[in-house]
Amino acid sequence: MRTLTVELGPRAYPIHIGAGLLCRPELLEPALGKGPVAVVTNTTVGPLYLPTLRETLQAMGREPVVIELPDGEQYKTLAAIEQIVDQLLAHGCDRSTTLLALGGGVVGDITGFAASVYQRGVPFVQIPTTLLAQVDSSVGGKTGVNHPRGKNMIGTFYQPRAVLIDTDTLKTLPEREYRSGIAEVIKYGLIVDQGFFNYLEDNMDALLAQEPGVLAHVIEQSCADKAWVVAKDETEGGLRAILNLGHTFGHAIEAATGYGTYLHGEAVAIGMAMAADLSRRLDLLRESEQSAIYRLIKRAGLPTAAPALPVADYLRYMRVDKKAQEGRMRFVLLTAIGEATITGDVPEAAVIEAIQSHMEGR
Amino acid sequence: MRTLTVELGPRAYPIHIGAGLLCRPELLEPALGKGPVAVVTNTTVGPLYLPTLRETLQAMGREPVVIELPDGEQYKTLAAIEQIVDQLLAHGCDRSTTLLALGGGVVGDITGFAASVYQRGVPFVQIPTTLLAQVDSSVGGKTGVNHPRGKNMIGTFYQPRAVLIDTDTLKTLPEREYRSGIAEVIKYGLIVDQGFFNYLEDNMDALLAQEPGVLAHVIEQSCADKAWVVAKDETEGGLRAILNLGHTFGHAIEAATGYGTYLHGEAVAIGMAMAADLSRRLDLLRESEQSAIYRLIKRAGLPTAAPALPVADYLRYMRVDKKAQEGRMRFVLLTAIGEATITGDVPEAAVIEAIQSHMEGR
Repeated sequence: MRTLTVELGPRAYPIHIGAGLLCRPELLEPALGKGPVAVVTNTTVGPLYLPTLRETLQAMGREPVVIELPDGEQYKTLAAIEQIVDQLLAHGCDRSTTLLALGGGVVGDITGFAASVYQRGVPFVQIPTTLLAQVDSSVGGKTGVNHPRGKNMIGTFYQPRAVLIDTDTLKTLPEREYRSGIAEVIKYGLIVDQGFFNYLEDNMDALLAQEPGVLAHVIEQSCADKAWVVAKDETEGGLRAILNLGHTFGHAIEAATGYGTYLHGEAVAIGMAMAADLSRRLDLLRESEQSAIYRLIKRAGLPTAAPALPVADYLRYMRVDKKAQEGRMRFVLLTAIGEATITGDVPEAAVIEAIQSHMEGR
Repeated sequence: MRTLTVELGPRAYPIHIGAGLLCRPELLEPALGKGPVAVVTNTTVGPLYLPTLRETLQAMGREPVVIELPDGEQYKTLAAIEQIVDQLLAHGCDRSTTLLALGGGVVGDITGFAASVYQRGVPFVQIPTTLLAQVDSSVGGKTGVNHPRGKNMIGTFYQPRAVLIDTDTLKTLPEREYRSGIAEVIKYGLIVDQGFFNYLEDNMDALLAQEPGVLAHVIEQSCADKAWVVAKDETEGGLRAILNLGHTFGHAIEAATGYGTYLHGEAVAIGMAMAADLSRRLDLLRESEQSAIYRLIKRAGLPTAAPALPVADYLRYMRVDKKAQEGRMRFVLLTAIGEATITGDVPEAAVIEAIQSHMEGR
């Protein structure tokens, strides 16, 4: 097992990474309050891993309240928050309750948000079961739900007490979702860690085969890169926005095609390709680096071609991006592999070219 | 005009108190971001004060987005949050938007909560127009909405950038609501400020007549007392809970009779009478002090008799109080006028006696 710490002063917390961690009560114990424990999961993950987690909790003398949500991004809404609150109150869960998020990014985002607003805030623990959640959404304290007009428009910054990453849970993850998670892994290499990018070039096949040593290293390095950025800028005043590389384009793709058509990581992969393309068009990034980025994305089995939608649709969704300031789109761009920059100073013509050059069938 | 500061380090903010403040752009200016301004109000307060506020904003070159909610505690739900978010997104309001809460406690609580979760947090300003909101809910950063199973069960701790108390707005406040606000004023005397309690005994008639000097002093002293408590304990780890004197009983009365039957301050007045009674039963408070408390509550035209509901109903609602810990009710009790204590160590028999002795018709 490996343990990292997210350095956030009084809100610092550990990330434990390894196989079989769901069976380790001593990792959960320090993160739980004295009150009730409630596990939030979904109808896909619950049947697979809830029995193990429940057994571990029961061995600690804790019988958990279980709240099972339907599976899918379309259920990441305020209605889910209302449902969780309703269940917690029905079971007499008071302010000393700890919530455990057992599932992927959607479960983690919903549960974190519910924890941040239930009785004005109760502790929670992330137990991510998808690669995407393990390397990205479970670390850093962003919580939230979607609104029909945009993704993650309602949420909070709220840190978990601990993150428990049991790599065994990836064994049941569908191949397509596993590859989707690799998009965020590649992202860390692109924005802050050239050495990690090179490691991924050398080890992509082993990563795709879930070779244990490579997998553990990749998760650890991804979490370490993310934790470093988050510790420097918890509430996205500046630097943290680089974590959104590819996400402005990616969110627009997800929203315009209807959530669920593209997996989040797939949309981000396309978005990173577009961001690299835009960076090269603005003479920030060398063509050879752009090519290396495309190659690695493709080797991970991820797309670089965008759906053929009207450019106006892309632009409309991009303008409601949370990074926008005073109606102006802002972009995370690359100045090299391992170096990102944030700018609002991008000619719209270049953005349109970057979008059009990635459309399928062109 | 008088100005107080709530001392919360990087989240410190001013409270301005005086007549005609809605027309003072220089008080608003420092609290507004560079982006859009959105005013949240309701169908009662909007027609009265929105024109003045809008004129002040327009003179600053700021045309506000206006979001008008229906008036009433029954609309303090997650649906109102969804409606605000929807309107903000429809008007292209980004993360640089500032929300202004123009109205009573319900508008303030809803707007503050919306501000805390919109795009993971935007700034907001409280412009309370009821006495209750001016002396209590607008100060201290508690935000939230109700759930059918309990009041304020979904919310956050989130501080405003400024509080603007224009005492002119009280001229249109219905008499019954004005008196309801006095309940929270009396509370400050009871929990931390014996001198203020004595001042209220000497000046209750002038306060009921809204004599300007007395009114301004009462609002200022109430805000100062609350700000002092909040600065010591922002997120209710301990001391802050004394602000809930009378609220455990009061919330149960409001919930059990259906929100709106009793005004919040009326329920709190009855709750404070019950808390004083319980304190005396437990030999914490002298009978003469209990009598002085009842006299002052009655002089304010507030009730001390509780609705005749089954005791089990009271207890059931009291058990979901946010102060409850591990299923155990906790009470704010008085050891003297001006001195409060918090305890979980109260025999249920005494609680039941305190409730029964206040029932109407007994």
